[in-house]
Parts: sequence; C-alpha cells; structure tokens
Amino acid sequence: MQFTSEQRLDDGVHEREFTLGEIPGTLWTPESPAPAPLILMAHNNGLPKGEARLVARARHSAAYGYAVASIDAPGCGDRPRSAVDEQARAGLRRAMQAGEPVDEIFESFIGPLVEKAVPDWRTTLDALLALPEIGGPVGYSGWTAVGIRLAVVEPRIAAAGFFAGGYVPRAQREEARQVTVPLLFLLQWDDEGNDRQRALDLFDAFGSKEKTLHANLGGHVGTPWFEVEDGDRFFGRHLK
Amino acid sequence: MQFTSEQRLDDGVHEREFTLGEIPGTLWTPESPAPAPLILMAHNNGLPKGEARLVARARHSAAYGYAVASIDAPGCGDRPRSAVDEQARAGLRRAMQAGEPVDEIFESFIGPLVEKAVPDWRTTLDALLALPEIGGPVGYSGWTAVGIRLAVVEPRIAAAGFFAGGYVPRAQREEARQVTVPLLFLLQWDDEGNDRQRALDLFDAFGSKEKTLHANLGGHVGTPWFEVEDGDRFFGRHLK
Repeated sequence: MQFTSEQRLDDGVHEREFTLGEIPGTLWTPESPAPAPLILMAHNNGLPKGEARLVARARHSAAYGYAVASIDAPGCGDRPRSAVDEQARAGLRRAMQAGEPVDEIFESFIGPLVEKAVPDWRTTLDALLALPEIGGPVGYSGWTAVGIRLAVVEPRIAAAGFFAGGYVPRAQREEARQVTVPLLFLLQWDDEGNDRQRALDLFDAFGSKEKTLHANLGGHVGTPWFEVEDGDRFFGRHLK
Repeated sequence: MQFTSEQRLDDGVHEREFTLGEIPGTLWTPESPAPAPLILMAHNNGLPKGEARLVARARHSAAYGYAVASIDAPGCGDRPRSAVDEQARAGLRRAMQAGEPVDEIFESFIGPLVEKAVPDWRTTLDALLALPEIGGPVGYSGWTAVGIRLAVVEPRIAAAGFFAGGYVPRAQREEARQVTVPLLFLLQWDDEGNDRQRALDLFDAFGSKEKTLHANLGGHVGTPWFEVEDGDRFFGRHLK
C-alpha cells in the first residue's frame, strides 16, 4: 500500500490517497491517536470513490471517530475500462433512455463487477488492518450487492449498512439469507430507478437477527443527512 | 388540573399524577428549570398509562429534556368501564382465542374509543400548556389512530412518532393523507397481531413530506431500546 497524496481537513481528519497494486483508494482517519474501528465504504453500481456524496459521508464518519476507506472497483472511477465495460454501459444508457427493461443488462454488467470487486476489497482490508492507526472491528457501508457478498465470505465484517438504491444481482439476492451480521438497510421510498417491493423483499430475506430498515420519503438522491448520523450511531453499537 | 401525588426519580425527573375532571394523567418533567418542549404519549388500543413500557419510555424522554404526559382514555386504565366496553373486550378475547377475524370487532371498539379519546387529549393539552414548566412546541408519540386524528384536528402538534402495532380504524386510515407533520413510523416486522402490508400502506398514505419508517425484526413487544433514543433525536430535530 503506497500513499500518493495527503491532506489534513479542518476537523482534523487525515485524508490520504493510496494505491495497492492496481487498486486506487482513499483512506480517511480521525484525529485521535488511538487505533480506530474501520468502515469500508462503497457506492452502489461501482460509482467512483471520489463522488461528492460518498466523500461527504466518509469525512463525517471519520470526524465521528472511524477510519473510513473506499476503493474504485475494476473498470470504475480512476481504473481503466475494458471494451466490454464500455459496451455494457452504452447499452445500459440506451435502454434507460428508451425506457426499456434494464434488469438483464444490469445482471450482465453488475453481476461480474461484484465478483471482481470483492477480492479487491479483501486485499484492501488485509492492507488496512496492518496499519497501526486502524484497530478494527470492521463495518461495511453502501453498495448492497458487494456488501452481501463480502459479508458472506469475509468473517471480519462485523456489521453492515446497505443502501437499497442499486441493482442487486440474482446471485446476491439468493445469498442474502446467509448474511447474519447486524444490519441497517436504507431505502428511499420513491427511488425512481429501483423497485420498492424488491427492496422490501430483500430486507425480509436477510438472515440477520438484528436488522433495521430506515425508509425515507423521496427519490434516489434524497436521503436525509440525519441518516449519516444514524449510521454512525448504528456502527457505534456494533464496532466496539 | 390537580396534582394528586409526586415523586422525584434518581435522574432528577419529576413524576406527578394528576386529574383533570374525569381524566387521570401522569406528567414527567426534566430537572432543568427552563420550560420544556412537550410530548404527548399514548399506547395503542388504549393500554393504560401506567404500563411499564410506556413509563420507561416516558422517563427516558423526560431525562433527555422533554416534558412527557400520558392520560388514560375513556374506559381504559384507571377509568370506569361501561357494560358496552366490557362486552366488546370479552368479544375480542373470544375471537382472538378462537382465531377468528377480529377487524370488525376492533372497528366497533377502537373506532368510538378514538373519537372519545381525542377531545380528552385536547383538554389535557390546554391544561399542560398553561403550566410554567412546559413551553411547547408539542410532539405526539405512540398510539397511531389517536395520533392521526389529533394531528389532523390539532394544529399545535408539530411532529409525531407512531407505533404501527395497533388497530387503525378505517376513518383514521382515510384521514392519514391529511397528516402533514414530520413523522417517524415505527414497525415491528413480525408483529404477530398486526398486518405488515397494512402498516406499509399506511406509511405510504401519510401526507407528510418528511416521513421516516423504522422497521425492526421481531414481534409486537420486541422493539429495540435504541428506537427510544432515535425517537428522542427525531423530536430534537422538530421540537425547537
């Protein structure tokens, strides 16, 4: 893991860009010198780690006392895209503009992306936990499909907050029953691109004994800011 | 309003029993000398104000900084029951034990109870707001059906937290669209006596622009304690 740039933010949070082999990432750590619990943070559908809403959430959680890390998934953000990726994205845009069904396009695009992203997250987790400023335990926040896979295969994930607004491949809908960590599931009630009933069915399917759904009125990007604070408190109950 | 007994709890909360005409009530106020915002707290289906779970919630919210008041609805708790009330309750018990449909019994019993309880709450609100230790604004917490009616007819209600686990008469399901105050709706996902889809439909129907659903795994009495704290923070955003 090589740190390539760093800055100290106004609230004392230390923000560093890193690379780990081909994986570009960002690490936010709190001012406190004690080793911090870690939250892995990812956007649904492979949105870049530099996206403003993710960065705002990450900085807030770091100021609250967590180490927060995000990486770009293969073919996403700062990483090179294959011709296949470009074709899939172009096909998706065309279908969405034409109002055509997009499930199968998403399935062919997000399914393999999840399979490729999860090993990168585990590699990153190994490297992060070797840093003295990170103590564990480990939470996961954001991209539902990657989070499901990661929670199933990675015993170091102790709690997870998922955002329902993203495509969840059939494979991950199937393995939702195997997720058993405490869970906070965040749903935008009127998410224009994501089916409400499918999200409620997914919440029902999770195998966790402790699971909470937070649903708020409004569209995909309308999540109220207090949910970031609720998320911090959720992790506060479980990352000790 | 006549105070009939009082005690000072360990955390400084002042707990007083009162009567207001035929209405018996309890008022919890925080230690702070400044006038406190008020929360009206009621149990679904007219459960008594002395019920342990309600008392625990009320004391917690008073220690947090709110004045909290609860009253017994007509025919409930410490108030005399009519022969009609007794018959309805006996009929309900028989139907539930026999596993028969209970909607119509609930409708004939809870419908009139809501109609009678709401004027008592408004009378109590007048008296409470005349006390120097209560400053408003006013929130409402608990019994959904009474809360819907009260939020529609009573402009002093500024925010409401409803618990989904109780029968909501058709009249209140209809007027849910007229509820426009910020809302926190609390649902037990596996509530054995209350239909989940009906609760989700009710959440959908509320007219409020700011509404949040919190759903937790488990049965009717399994609401996690952190929801009391989430409720305090919800009122903290709106009772200022």
